[in-house]
Amino acid sequence: MVTVIERTSSDGAGATERPGLPVRVVYTGGPPESDPRRLIPELGFREYWYPLIGADTVPRRKPRRIKLLGEELCVFHGAHGVAAVSNFCPHRGTRLSGGDCHYAGTVSCPYHGFTYDERGECVAALPEGPESRMPGKIRVRRYPTRTIKGIVFVWMGAGSPAPVEHDLPPELFDESLVLHDAVVWSANWRPALENFQDAHTPYVHRDSVPWVVRRIMKKSYEGARPVIHGGGVPLTYYTDGKRDAAPYQEYFPGVKGYWPKHRWRLLWTPLFGGVKRPQMGARRAPYLADPEWGNGPHMPGMQRIDFGGAMYTRWCVPIGRRTTRQFYFHAWRPKSEWERLRALATYPIVYRWWQYRQFGLQDDRVLTGTDYNRREYFSEFDVETIGWRTLAILSASYGGRHDRIPAEVVERYNRRALASRQADGQGH
Amino acid sequence: MVTVIERTSSDGAGATERPGLPVRVVYTGGPPESDPRRLIPELGFREYWYPLIGADTVPRRKPRRIKLLGEELCVFHGAHGVAAVSNFCPHRGTRLSGGDCHYAGTVSCPYHGFTYDERGECVAALPEGPESRMPGKIRVRRYPTRTIKGIVFVWMGAGSPAPVEHDLPPELFDESLVLHDAVVWSANWRPALENFQDAHTPYVHRDSVPWVVRRIMKKSYEGARPVIHGGGVPLTYYTDGKRDAAPYQEYFPGVKGYWPKHRWRLLWTPLFGGVKRPQMGARRAPYLADPEWGNGPHMPGMQRIDFGGAMYTRWCVPIGRRTTRQFYFHAWRPKSEWERLRALATYPIVYRWWQYRQFGLQDDRVLTGTDYNRREYFSEFDVETIGWRTLAILSASYGGRHDRIPAEVVERYNRRALASRQADGQGH
Amino acid sequence: MVTVIERTSSDGAGATERPGLPVRVVYTGGPPESDPRRLIPELGFREYWYPLIGADTVPRRKPRRIKLLGEELCVFHGAHGVAAVSNFCPHRGTRLSGGDCHYAGTVSCPYHGFTYDERGECVAALPEGPESRMPGKIRVRRYPTRTIKGIVFVWMGAGSPAPVEHDLPPELFDESLVLHDAVVWSANWRPALENFQDAHTPYVHRDSVPWVVRRIMKKSYEGARPVIHGGGVPLTYYTDGKRDAAPYQEYFPGVKGYWPKHRWRLLWTPLFGGVKRPQMGARRAPYLADPEWGNGPHMPGMQRIDFGGAMYTRWCVPIGRRTTRQFYFHAWRPKSEWERLRALATYPIVYRWWQYRQFGLQDDRVLTGTDYNRREYFSEFDVETIGWRTLAILSASYGGRHDRIPAEVVERYNRRALASRQADGQGH
Repeated sequence: MVTVIERTSSDGAGATERPGLPVRVVYTGGPPESDPRRLIPELGFREYWYPLIGADTVPRRKPRRIKLLGEELCVFHGAHGVAAVSNFCPHRGTRLSGGDCHYAGTVSCPYHGFTYDERGECVAALPEGPESRMPGKIRVRRYPTRTIKGIVFVWMGAGSPAPVEHDLPPELFDESLVLHDAVVWSANWRPALENFQDAHTPYVHRDSVPWVVRRIMKKSYEGARPVIHGGGVPLTYYTDGKRDAAPYQEYFPGVKGYWPKHRWRLLWTPLFGGVKRPQMGARRAPYLADPEWGNGPHMPGMQRIDFGGAMYTRWCVPIGRRTTRQFYFHAWRPKSEWERLRALATYPIVYRWWQYRQFGLQDDRVLTGTDYNRREYFSEFDVETIGWRTLAILSASYGGRHDRIPAEVVERYNRRALASRQADGQGH
Repeated sequence: MVTVIERTSSDGAGATERPGLPVRVVYTGGPPESDPRRLIPELGFREYWYPLIGADTVPRRKPRRIKLLGEELCVFHGAHGVAAVSNFCPHRGTRLSGGDCHYAGTVSCPYHGFTYDERGECVAALPEGPESRMPGKIRVRRYPTRTIKGIVFVWMGAGSPAPVEHDLPPELFDESLVLHDAVVWSANWRPALENFQDAHTPYVHRDSVPWVVRRIMKKSYEGARPVIHGGGVPLTYYTDGKRDAAPYQEYFPGVKGYWPKHRWRLLWTPLFGGVKRPQMGARRAPYLADPEWGNGPHMPGMQRIDFGGAMYTRWCVPIGRRTTRQFYFHAWRPKSEWERLRALATYPIVYRWWQYRQFGLQDDRVLTGTDYNRREYFSEFDVETIGWRTLAILSASYGGRHDRIPAEVVERYNRRALASRQADGQGH
Repeated sequence: MVTVIERTSSDGAGATERPGLPVRVVYTGGPPESDPRRLIPELGFREYWYPLIGADTVPRRKPRRIKLLGEELCVFHGAHGVAAVSNFCPHRGTRLSGGDCHYAGTVSCPYHGFTYDERGECVAALPEGPESRMPGKIRVRRYPTRTIKGIVFVWMGAGSPAPVEHDLPPELFDESLVLHDAVVWSANWRPALENFQDAHTPYVHRDSVPWVVRRIMKKSYEGARPVIHGGGVPLTYYTDGKRDAAPYQEYFPGVKGYWPKHRWRLLWTPLFGGVKRPQMGARRAPYLADPEWGNGPHMPGMQRIDFGGAMYTRWCVPIGRRTTRQFYFHAWRPKSEWERLRALATYPIVYRWWQYRQFGLQDDRVLTGTDYNRREYFSEFDVETIGWRTLAILSASYGGRHDRIPAEVVERYNRRALASRQADGQGH
C-alpha cells in the first residue's frame, strides 16, 4: 500500500526516533487527531523561499501590507530593492503598512513616525527630533528578500535562508522569459494544492473558455507510479492507449446515459486544432530535462505543468487558515523578438484572464464548497495526491524541508510505491 | 409545584436510573449548567420525522441544499420522489448541492463528477470513465424521505424510522386540503417554539394586519391545567368568564392609565364581525377530536391551533444554533369545489403574507432581541411553557422520544399538575 | 526605574497582601500572562461614575439602548430625569430597549408588555390585565443616574455610588458652560486612552484641519516628571527651551533629510496667529487651579487638556472589547452673553466636526491598525503612559479605585518617579 509511509516522530518534526512507523496519508475515519492531513502545516512550510509580490507593484511612496504563512509583512522599497519587515512597529504595535515612505529606502510608522530602513533598523523618530534616543536602539524584524525576473521572493524561516537556487524553479535562473500574476482563493493552501490535474480537470473545466473550443479531455492513471524526486513528485505516466482509443462519448450503465452528454463540441473542435484528443504527457520534448521540476507537485506548494513549449507554475502561498494566494508564473524561451512580443501581448488575455481567473476560479468555487476535515475515500485517479502527501508529511517529519529526509527513507518509499502500483493499481 | 418533574438520568438520555429526581423547568438562577433549558437538545430532537421542503420547489436539474438539525442535506429528485443525502461527497468532502442532476434520479458532485442515486450509491464517476472502480464501492449517507400532500418529510434519527403516521398530524392522512410554506426566524428553535399563545399574543400583534381590524383580544390562564397527552400538551382551559365580562379598556393603577390606550378599534370592529371579543377555546367544534393533536405544543417542535374550521401548524425546525425554519401548514375540509378554490385563492395573501410574514415576523423581531440564557421569572400566563418544557425534558430523558416515557411517569406528572394548579394557580 | 511599582496582590484586586512586589508597566516580552496591561480591566473600572448620554437625546416615547463597560442598559425618561436599567426583562430575557414608553416615567417590554418604572419595579403587565400578580413581584436592576449640565452620568459599580463630586471634573459643578458630544472609536479603551499628547500629536495630526494652518508643533519630554495626584497624573513639565530654540526644519542624518519635509506652512502661519511655535504648557494661567484635574490622564479613563481659556476632556468609555465611546466635553467661562453665544455657535464646527471627527478620527484610524497585545519598546516621550499605567494598575490592585491606594504607596512611587527621571530620563 503506498499509503504506508515511513515516519519518524509523532510530532511531525525533529530528528529520527522510531524509523518505520507506518502512517496512512488518507483519512479514512477515526478521531480527528488521526487525520494525516494534520501533519502538513496548516499555515505552510516556513523553511522555504516564497514568492511575495511583483516588484513593480510596490509603490514608491507607500508601503504595502502582504500577509503570508499567517503573518503580516510590510513591504517597501529599500535602498537595494524591495524589502520586507514585520508589519508591527516594535514601539507600540502599530501596523507600518499604514504609514509612509517619506525618505528613499525607508518606511515610517503612522503613529509616532518611527522610521525603519531595509535592515529593520530605526533610523529616525521624526516627531521626537534628531536628538531622539530611539534610532540605533529599536529595530523591527526583517525578512530576507531576493528579486528575480521581477518577482520578489522572501524567506520567513527560523533558520538561515536556503540557497535561493535550491528552492526556486530553474527557469527563473536561465534565459527564460517569465511572466507572473496572483489571484486569491478562499481555501486553505492544502486543498488548494491538492486541486491536481486529476479527474476533476476535464469535469470542472469542461465549459471554461479555453476548453469550450476543444473536445473534452480524457485521462487515465492506470499504471501511474508517483515517486519522490527531490522536492517534486513527477508522475512517470498518466495516460494510456486505452483511453486514446475510446470513443468521444462513453456509455455509463449506472446512469443509463452517455458522458459527455452532447457531441456539439465536435462540430468546431477541428477549427481550433483540437482534432486529436489533448493528452498531457511525455510525448513532447519537455521544457526542462530535470524531472524534479517537471509535471506535478513540488515543495513547498507548487503545482507544475510542463507544456513543452512553456512551463506553468501555480504556487499555493498560504495566507491564513482559509485563504491562499495563487502565485502563477509562466516561462517561455522565445526564439525571436517577435515571439517575445507575442508572449507579452497575449499573456494578459490568455493567462491573466482565461487561465487564472475564468478557469482557475472554477476550482476556487468548488473548493469553497469543500470541507477538508471529513473522511475521504480515494480513487486511483487520486494517485498524485498520495504522492504529494507522502512527500509533505515526510518533509514535516524531518525538520520541515524535503532535503532533510534521509535518502534511504525516500528510496524505501519509492520502491514500495512502484511495487504497490504494479500489484494493485489502487491508490489506498 | 408543576415545575417539579420526574427525571431519571442526569445526562438527559438513556434508561431509567433514579426515578423521582426533581428538576425545575424554569431557570431561576444558579450556575449556567443548572439551566433546565439545556436539557432540551439545542439542535432539536433527532428521532422524529421533520418537514423538509415542498416537493414542487425542488428543481429538476439542480439539487438543493437544506440545513436542518445542524446538518446539511442535498435534496434532489430520485427515481421515486424527492430524496435526501448528506451534502458532502465521501470522496473528497465537496458539497453535492453545488453539483448537477445530469441524469434522472441522480446527483453529481461538482468536483470529480461522482454520481449518486437516491439510495446514496455511487453509480458513475463521469470523468473516470465507465471502467472506474468507484461505482458500487463508495456511497453517501441517505436519509429516508416520505412525500405527503406535497410536503417532503425526512428522518434523520440514528434509529430506524418511526411509522410516519405516529409523528405527523392526522390531517396529513385524512381527506384534508393541506397548504404549506416556510419562513426562517433568527432564533434558536426552543425560544421560537415557546413563543406560545400566551400574553404576548394580544400585545405583540396588536397592530398586525389581521388584528388591526378587531378588538384587542383578552386572555386568562386562570385554572389552566396543561397535561401531557401523548406527544402534545393540550390546554384544558384558557379563558374565563371574568375576562369575557371585563370592559374593553381597563385601568392600571401602577401606570395611572388605561390599556388599550385608545378605543379607535371599536369604531370599525363591528364591520369585520368582531363585535364579540375573540376568544380561542373549546367553544367551537374542534377540527380534530384527538386532544393530543389539538391546541398547544406537540413534539418534536410543533405549535398547533385548532380554529374549528381549519387546523394551523407552525413547526419549528431547527436549522443551526440561532436559526429556525418555521414550517407552516394549514388544513381545511372544503365541503365543495368552490370552498376548495377559495382556500387556494386566499392562502397566498391570508396565510403566506399576513400570517407567516407580517404577523409571524413580529415574533421573530422580538425573539431576535431576546437572550435565552438569562434567569427567568414566570407568570401564570406562562403555564403552557411549563407544560411543554416538562414534556420535552422528559422526552430527552427517555431516549429522545415522548413515546418512550413510561406511562406512570406521565400520569404522576399530570396528577401533580392538575393538583398544583388547583392549589395555587401559580406557574412556578 | 519608574516602571517598578508597588503592587499588593497578584489578582489585581483586593486588600494588601504583599506590599512591595515590583511590577513592570511596559510589556517587554515573556508569556502573555505577564503583560502588565492585563492588570488594567479590559472592560473598564466599574466603581466609578461614567458619562452615559446627553439628556436631550433620549426620546420621550422610546427607550434607548446604550452599551458600556460590556453591559447593555435601557435608558428612558423616568419620573425624575433620565433613568437606566438593565436592558433585559427579568421575565423572559427580552431587550427592553426594543419596547415603548407607553406611560410617562416607564418602559414596557416589547414581548409581554411588562412595564417598569425608574426604580426598576414592575408596575403593570399590560396584556395580563390589572389583576396580574407580576407587579410588585418582579423587578429589573436599576443603575443610579445623575444629570449634570445636560449630561447623564451613571453608576454601574457593585458598591454604593461614590459622591458624584469626587469622580467628575470640577467644571461640571462651577459656573462653567459645558458642551459635549460623543464619537465611537474601534479600539479598546486602554489604547484609546493611551493615545496621549505624546510624540504622535504633531505627527498624526500634521494635516488635520486645525493644524494645517499652523507650524507643526514641537514637543519635548526631557525632565518630565509624571507623578500621581489623586486620580490624575499631571505632567509637571513637558516642553523645554531647547525645542523652542530649534529651527522649523531639522536635519535627520539617519534618513539624510529634513523633517518637516516642506516649509509651505510658514507662508500663511502668521495669518492665523501662529507665528510663535504652539507649545502647551504651564505658561498660561490654567483654567483650573487643582493640578489633579489639569493636563493629563485621570481615572477612570479621561484625558484632560487645560487650554487656559477652556478645559478639554476626552473620556474613554469602554463599550466592548474593541469599541470605545469617546465622550467629549468642553468647558468655558464666558465673560459675557456675547462670549456665551459665540461658544454655542462655534462648538458644532470647531469641536464637533474639526476636533472630534476630523482630528480625532485620525487617531481612531491609527489605533484600528494597532495590535495592543505585542511587546512594546518605550521612548522617553511615552513617560505619560508610564505614569497613567502605574496609577491604573495600583487602582486595580486596591479595590478598583484610586482613592483606596494607601497614601504611602503613592508617595513612594512619586518619590521614585522623580528620582529616576532625574537619574536617567529614560522611560523604561
